[in-house]
Amino acid sequence: MLVSYDEVHATLRDVLQRGGMEPDRADHCARLFADASRDGVASHGVNRFPRFVAMIRNGMVDVHARPVRVATRGAMERWDGRRGPGNLNASACMTRAIELAREHGIGAVGLGNSNHWMRGGNYGWQAADAGMIGLCWSNTLPNVPAWGTTIPLIGNNPLIIAVPRAGGHVVLDMAMSQFSYGALGTHRMRGQELPVVGGYDEQGELTRDPAAIERTQRLLPIGFWKGSGLAILLDMVAAVLAGGKATHDFSTVPEEESGQSQAFLALDAASLGADGESGSIADRIVDALHDGAAGAGEEARYPGERTLEVRAKSMREGVFVDDAMWREVLAL
Amino acid sequence: MLVSYDEVHATLRDVLQRGGMEPDRADHCARLFADASRDGVASHGVNRFPRFVAMIRNGMVDVHARPVRVATRGAMERWDGRRGPGNLNASACMTRAIELAREHGIGAVGLGNSNHWMRGGNYGWQAADAGMIGLCWSNTLPNVPAWGTTIPLIGNNPLIIAVPRAGGHVVLDMAMSQFSYGALGTHRMRGQELPVVGGYDEQGELTRDPAAIERTQRLLPIGFWKGSGLAILLDMVAAVLAGGKATHDFSTVPEEESGQSQAFLALDAASLGADGESGSIADRIVDALHDGAAGAGEEARYPGERTLEVRAKSMREGVFVDDAMWREVLAL
Repeated sequence: MLVSYDEVHATLRDVLQRGGMEPDRADHCARLFADASRDGVASHGVNRFPRFVAMIRNGMVDVHARPVRVATRGAMERWDGRRGPGNLNASACMTRAIELAREHGIGAVGLGNSNHWMRGGNYGWQAADAGMIGLCWSNTLPNVPAWGTTIPLIGNNPLIIAVPRAGGHVVLDMAMSQFSYGALGTHRMRGQELPVVGGYDEQGELTRDPAAIERTQRLLPIGFWKGSGLAILLDMVAAVLAGGKATHDFSTVPEEESGQSQAFLALDAASLGADGESGSIADRIVDALHDGAAGAGEEARYPGERTLEVRAKSMREGVFVDDAMWREVLAL
Repeated sequence: MLVSYDEVHATLRDVLQRGGMEPDRADHCARLFADASRDGVASHGVNRFPRFVAMIRNGMVDVHARPVRVATRGAMERWDGRRGPGNLNASACMTRAIELAREHGIGAVGLGNSNHWMRGGNYGWQAADAGMIGLCWSNTLPNVPAWGTTIPLIGNNPLIIAVPRAGGHVVLDMAMSQFSYGALGTHRMRGQELPVVGGYDEQGELTRDPAAIERTQRLLPIGFWKGSGLAILLDMVAAVLAGGKATHDFSTVPEEESGQSQAFLALDAASLGADGESGSIADRIVDALHDGAAGAGEEARYPGERTLEVRAKSMREGVFVDDAMWREVLAL
């Protein structure tokens, strides 16, 4: 069904306030969930909201905890998320990285002891809305086999890179496996094969069968050994900057995944002068991509392009929410 | 054949000096080439050296040009490489990022108007040797099809992430396609299939046949649409920071690939205090990876682990150089 953005936002906000979250924080937290669904990422929007509320109720997320700065060094800081709401912590740390970038040109924040930040792309859009290049990533519990092994030793760490652009920011939001478990489930329920290979079956062969991969739990890292290596490095840099948990420190029980380490970087490239106005260079890259593809009778899109289309449609026609999931939210 | 590291270094250095490069710069430039071959990356070491010399002789690389700072903003700077030797420019800019990080905790340098930096991993090892987390990347000419198209619109941009560790730095050095053209050629000449799919054949099907991919020029980006998106963002951030060329601005003739934009970031994470001593956290991540794999009777390696083994062997037994390539170098 379609629900207006304002109604999605207000509904989630009211649940959070009834759960004890302060009004201003409930408003912000609910907006971050609503934004994800609005942009077509329901898996970390409305669909994830009941689990988030469950983690407040079981004490994994401390609804009152606010992040505190624990170390500072010029343009780089370390913050402790105190197991507060992961999306509020992440948003606060990107805000801080942006402030540091306004002062020093670039700013970096390591956030430890936080919680799942839900949709990572939110913090990339946040940086770009502030006119900044933004980079951020999070570690996760171990749920992807390290290259060379059949067992989950690395995290499906999301990486976000955002560049501001007047005609629509360019925002990449990708995790280290070819498909998430959420995507496997969606394809399985629809009786669809994956569009490309997504992991290994019980014979150890690459497969497009989502159910087979769910059985082996052997998700394919993007680029085989390359995505596996990238996951290790993102985990390591985030944990070292945050002085926090690494992937191997997490429980492998999803309901107990808490204490994430995250890294937030903002760069005020526009302040370097005319050539650094990302508008012109970013626009030319986008135009070259579109025109180059069109010249061959094909189509290419920049990261974030489809997001803007979905967002506009959601604001015009309403945000798509799964009927059963929405009933679950209304019953919270 | 095997040639001692010192002889490789001295041989390359003498060629560069005869070509007009100042002695200290020739020594450094030759060392960066020798280091690549020593570490098992001959494609951007000795094997690339004749082409580098050819680009000096045809004027694409100005042997005397030194990079100059053209804009500064706190912990972030923009440098102009003035079409000088790409590896010397890159090394100088990572040195500068490290200096900025010593002062501000983090430092960033955008380098434009440079040349091919050869082996990108060198600058990651450089940062880690200085006790810094290092990130850097370069754009390239368009040589990988953007996702959704069959024509090369994006670059095979290398991305390097390095974390210092007493027991051996962790250094990821990866480009955006599953295999380079160099790797395709090596497999083809040996009559070998690629270990995993590496691109598309003339029927538009994924294939492990290197010759088929060479014919279509359709390299597979890592993670399909994901690596394509990452390549676009790395190009965009580098070009915006540098105020320089983007991938679409390059000639598609490899011999004319000049003017690269590159980004260099260094983070002095150890300065954040005890928890930030990367030794302990990085060591635990490496141990968990090794022990986790061993517990399942398998083996996993961290990025950079094999490099250290190859490096030790090269220093012990000599650097492996291709016979024909070495004769070509000696004739320069």
